[in-house]
Amino acid sequence: MERRVLLAAGLAGAMQGLGPNPAMAQGAGPALVEKKVFAPGAYRTRGGATIPNLRLGYQAAGRLNATGDNAILICHFFSGNSHAFGQLAANGPMGWWDAIIGPGKPIDTDRYFVVAVDTLVNVNVPDAGTVTTGPASLNPDTGRPWGMGFPVVSMRDFVETQKLLLDSLGVKRLALVAGPSNGGLQAIEWAAAYPDFVARVMPVIAADIDAWMQGWLDIWEAPIRLDPNWRDGDYYGAGREPPLRGLAEAWKIVTLHARDRLWAKQYDRTLPEGQDPARRIGDRFGIERWLDDAAAVRAKTSDANSFLYMVRANQLFLNEHPSLEAAMAQAAPRWLVVPSPTDRVFLIEGVRAFIEVLRKAGKQVETAEVTGSLGHLNGVVAMAPVGERIREFLAK
Amino acid sequence: MERRVLLAAGLAGAMQGLGPNPAMAQGAGPALVEKKVFAPGAYRTRGGATIPNLRLGYQAAGRLNATGDNAILICHFFSGNSHAFGQLAANGPMGWWDAIIGPGKPIDTDRYFVVAVDTLVNVNVPDAGTVTTGPASLNPDTGRPWGMGFPVVSMRDFVETQKLLLDSLGVKRLALVAGPSNGGLQAIEWAAAYPDFVARVMPVIAADIDAWMQGWLDIWEAPIRLDPNWRDGDYYGAGREPPLRGLAEAWKIVTLHARDRLWAKQYDRTLPEGQDPARRIGDRFGIERWLDDAAAVRAKTSDANSFLYMVRANQLFLNEHPSLEAAMAQAAPRWLVVPSPTDRVFLIEGVRAFIEVLRKAGKQVETAEVTGSLGHLNGVVAMAPVGERIREFLAK
Repeated sequence: MERRVLLAAGLAGAMQGLGPNPAMAQGAGPALVEKKVFAPGAYRTRGGATIPNLRLGYQAAGRLNATGDNAILICHFFSGNSHAFGQLAANGPMGWWDAIIGPGKPIDTDRYFVVAVDTLVNVNVPDAGTVTTGPASLNPDTGRPWGMGFPVVSMRDFVETQKLLLDSLGVKRLALVAGPSNGGLQAIEWAAAYPDFVARVMPVIAADIDAWMQGWLDIWEAPIRLDPNWRDGDYYGAGREPPLRGLAEAWKIVTLHARDRLWAKQYDRTLPEGQDPARRIGDRFGIERWLDDAAAVRAKTSDANSFLYMVRANQLFLNEHPSLEAAMAQAAPRWLVVPSPTDRVFLIEGVRAFIEVLRKAGKQVETAEVTGSLGHLNGVVAMAPVGERIREFLAK
Repeated sequence: MERRVLLAAGLAGAMQGLGPNPAMAQGAGPALVEKKVFAPGAYRTRGGATIPNLRLGYQAAGRLNATGDNAILICHFFSGNSHAFGQLAANGPMGWWDAIIGPGKPIDTDRYFVVAVDTLVNVNVPDAGTVTTGPASLNPDTGRPWGMGFPVVSMRDFVETQKLLLDSLGVKRLALVAGPSNGGLQAIEWAAAYPDFVARVMPVIAADIDAWMQGWLDIWEAPIRLDPNWRDGDYYGAGREPPLRGLAEAWKIVTLHARDRLWAKQYDRTLPEGQDPARRIGDRFGIERWLDDAAAVRAKTSDANSFLYMVRANQLFLNEHPSLEAAMAQAAPRWLVVPSPTDRVFLIEGVRAFIEVLRKAGKQVETAEVTGSLGHLNGVVAMAPVGERIREFLAK
């Protein structure tokens, strides 16, 4: 199961060719965390639909203070889950941001009460370490999985469900909301939705969504719809095959898009054994074989319909805000924005434009950059060097 | 037919939402060119296979001088054809680089003999204005289309077939070989293969291929293989449907990848009539609908198997050169390299690294940048501002 959690944490995992999880090499000592389930009953979406039986997984570390204002919320990336820090079992992998979260670390669980939540429509449904509500969940009205009948949800719905959890835990104010990529979008949405509840915001490898990103998200998901096994989302149950080929092709796009050419260099002129692409049109290059293998593994631990709903939640971020400038004018005051200059998903130009919007809105904005060969993924696996900047940001 | 040629010229065309072809607005007066066919008989590929009946379309303007050394070869991009300049009919569209090619223009057909050739495995097979040999051609041994039995060809095969044509036309030396994107790769290949035959090289929005690009090219083509109508390439003939859905998804990736976020801004928060993606999971955003429509049109004027072979020809560029440094050390001497800083296909970092390789190899390298909102496509549709730089480069 723990290997599956590592896969759930996803693109950063050792199974995808990055070598040992950088967080695992920290050696900061075990910090066992418990996976819990939040099940508040019915939830009404921003679109006006009702989800009768909301269930979301989460984990927490540290202790909430008497005034309830030392809480930090960590939001996960597109393919991730709430396992952002600590270990769920003694021999299991560390969370994906464990390099900066834990006792004595920049996001210090000796001082802060740190919470991370599995989102709605989380893609890691087949993973026992993920608890979510989405198209693969049972619709109590029919006794069958929702499939494409599940209500559309948005980033704001992620925020609202997290707010319900934080309220139930007694949190009165967040000292920080932070996350990479899709997690950064959630942080921005939090800052806009609950400006007085949020003291500090740290979007990492993220900015607002624009039409360019909406188009790319559509490209990510298109192979799923092309797979004949997708059957308009009706592939659950005995005797049916999930659209694993289409889902694997979708992951292949995400996997490459989230990396960079410097990372790919290791595959220059490599050929899998027996392959001769100069003479046989069906044969593969080294980089293709690596993508094939990584994506096939990832497809088995994720759900195609949930992928479609997660894409939509990201796309809707643009249309939910009639004016980004107006939304940010009302937003929380203090920001640490952390782009990766070689990010091919959230382009550095886009992050800079977002920072400009924040500054024009009068926010206090600091920036720090994550660097490395991994492009977008630097914001997941290469956070250690910006740890002290985060510590200082929290101290201000 | 002329509208189809415009589509063949492809991504830059008016049919894809760019408004009137920038070249058409030049008003430099008609320059009628004739589409011709080069049919030298059998051709043996670099991989050792034989194509019994090579046929390639081309067009030429200007007059070859007595010493045969005032020729210029223009190579086309992935989705393009030889219609780089002039008009094929009085009311037809201008060629895709007509802004810089023609009487008195920077690539001056009053002074130079300018040739452009349809490549092998050209994707625009269904277009009557394109003449190529590829998987959709009849295999004389079987009387049926080659399909995936067509030999793999490489960028070097493009060069060799063009060399046969130039030899037949009496060309002794190229004053310049130039082209955008895939055309730039052909120019680089020319410089490496025939350094004494090539006086000047101008790769536009192009550098060498690396594993990163090989991976992206695989992503471009993946939807074709997913389409059940593809049938391992055996979709030609009565009663069979070509894999238009997969091919359209492939074009959608190319189309977005070749543009940029500044271009996409016009679709921010646009919704097609009746679409409500916040409430219905099947509904579309403005940018998605535009991509759907543009790609569906493009799929009808192109061939899926040829797309796969064109991808392979591009990918092979890396593996055909065991060392780029060694290849460039032997290459032609004078270069004008023209990147687009917002190119998402050939990243500016990659072009800069390529320029560094040329400089270390002792070449005379100049650079000029194409700018605009269109990213990669700036190198097709926004060339006019670098026209004088090209004129000066040719005069040196």
